[in-house]
Amino acid sequence: MDKPLYRHASEVSFRDTDASGWLHFTNIFTHVEIAEHAFLRSRGLLVFDRSQGGWPRVKVACEYQHPLLCGDKIEVQLAIAALGTASVTWNFEVINAAGELAAHGSITTVRVNHLGRPQPLDATERTHLKERGL
Amino acid sequence: MDKPLYRHASEVSFRDTDASGWLHFTNIFTHVEIAEHAFLRSRGLLVFDRSQGGWPRVKVACEYQHPLLCGDKIEVQLAIAALGTASVTWNFEVINAAGELAAHGSITTVRVNHLGRPQPLDATERTHLKERGL
Amino acid sequence: MDKPLYRHASEVSFRDTDASGWLHFTNIFTHVEIAEHAFLRSRGLLVFDRSQGGWPRVKVACEYQHPLLCGDKIEVQLAIAALGTASVTWNFEVINAAGELAAHGSITTVRVNHLGRPQPLDATERTHLKERGL
Amino acid sequence: MDKPLYRHASEVSFRDTDASGWLHFTNIFTHVEIAEHAFLRSRGLLVFDRSQGGWPRVKVACEYQHPLLCGDKIEVQLAIAALGTASVTWNFEVINAAGELAAHGSITTVRVNHLGRPQPLDATERTHLKERGL
Repeated sequence: MDKPLYRHASEVSFRDTDASGWLHFTNIFTHVEIAEHAFLRSRGLLVFDRSQGGWPRVKVACEYQHPLLCGDKIEVQLAIAALGTASVTWNFEVINAAGELAAHGSITTVRVNHLGRPQPLDATERTHLKERGL
Repeated sequence: MDKPLYRHASEVSFRDTDASGWLHFTNIFTHVEIAEHAFLRSRGLLVFDRSQGGWPRVKVACEYQHPLLCGDKIEVQLAIAALGTASVTWNFEVINAAGELAAHGSITTVRVNHLGRPQPLDATERTHLKERGL
Repeated sequence: MDKPLYRHASEVSFRDTDASGWLHFTNIFTHVEIAEHAFLRSRGLLVFDRSQGGWPRVKVACEYQHPLLCGDKIEVQLAIAALGTASVTWNFEVINAAGELAAHGSITTVRVNHLGRPQPLDATERTHLKERGL
Repeated sequence: MDKPLYRHASEVSFRDTDASGWLHFTNIFTHVEIAEHAFLRSRGLLVFDRSQGGWPRVKVACEYQHPLLCGDKIEVQLAIAALGTASVTWNFEVINAAGELAAHGSITTVRVNHLGRPQPLDATERTHLKERGL
């Protein structure tokens, strides 16, 4: 990723793995979500609150290129590919300790209110989410 | 378990395992919780509802005797060890396909209302939860 | 899905949910994997074995249309979209109890040997995996 | 915990929660395991390796005193309660951001070799694991 909007260092836990010895494929998304939430918090934006809503996913995709093992240090890189009225499409890359691209993909989230209904991004959200690194 | 109150058949999924090849120890509790919820539903009792509350755990314990692998058929057996004013203590055993005791332990849950505050077991709950198999 | 190759009934567990009250998006893939493994077992095909290998994912995608709650009955429907030399691309649909499409997507898996290296599908695998319902 | 052997800072992720809004009880053990592994790595001890073995759990227990929410900062404190021939019994406390004891318990692990058989703690392991903070 040329100019990521955000970088988040993480580590593959034993719990992330499965019997193959590798990180279970679903946990790439868990690490990406943790990075996304760290970014949102760093900007003072909502992550999740029962009375205010959150960011459910409507579309996700991932390609896996290198397996990850328990204890592997990884970096999640995030960029914003598109902003809709109430949605954000993130691109992500997961880089392993050797600097290789272990996985990459995209996630589209929708800003919903406390009833789970889409709610247009407000000015503050739009400002912080426009600062894209692409 | 001599006379279980409830038996629930289950299967170890790939997702349940970790890099050791065995079921990750936390997932014994997941299978026991699924059995407990199946029992509660079978009696028409609340499992969880945001407006009515649920059954958070206040104390759990487990001993592991045989590892479980992906695809292993298991049976979770439940009995009620004690009923408090607002709490239920379950004993559980997890039996593998060879009929061996793979794990056993106990879980104490508290009936809470929608605010997460303890709420005494009502007559219906007490009736169904008293039908113990011990 | 017009003619699914396989249908697998499942249920959303409490453990599958997150603080939004809905199934955590990663767990759609867990339920799809459980269905895929049930299909493979039903045909006598390998699911995972440390000495024989398995089916790691190289590409996944999902779109979410209806949230799923704890206790929801679901059906996972599978079809095979493409067979490669060593790969299988599955299409999946997750149907809720109202018969609505809750989520759909695709998963590409690669047959690997015990060293994690791609291994061409053998005649038996090809026979069973060709019986497509598309 | 008066003199913990090790302290590990962590954060409750969205994925750690369930529909109650609180951390799912099983994930206390996940955070404790991550702390234990961080400690083992800090001393140069084995965490898990397919050709060398690992530390499966034989007994766990936990009491929960304060619910934890998505984003909560926590500290896991570890001490060693007992060393056996091939086993280690850890005591743990999980402290929330207000400094309150959110959960505490114990975990007994056994050092196993690559075949999953118990293997007596060697001199190096015993040295590092004896440095207890109790």
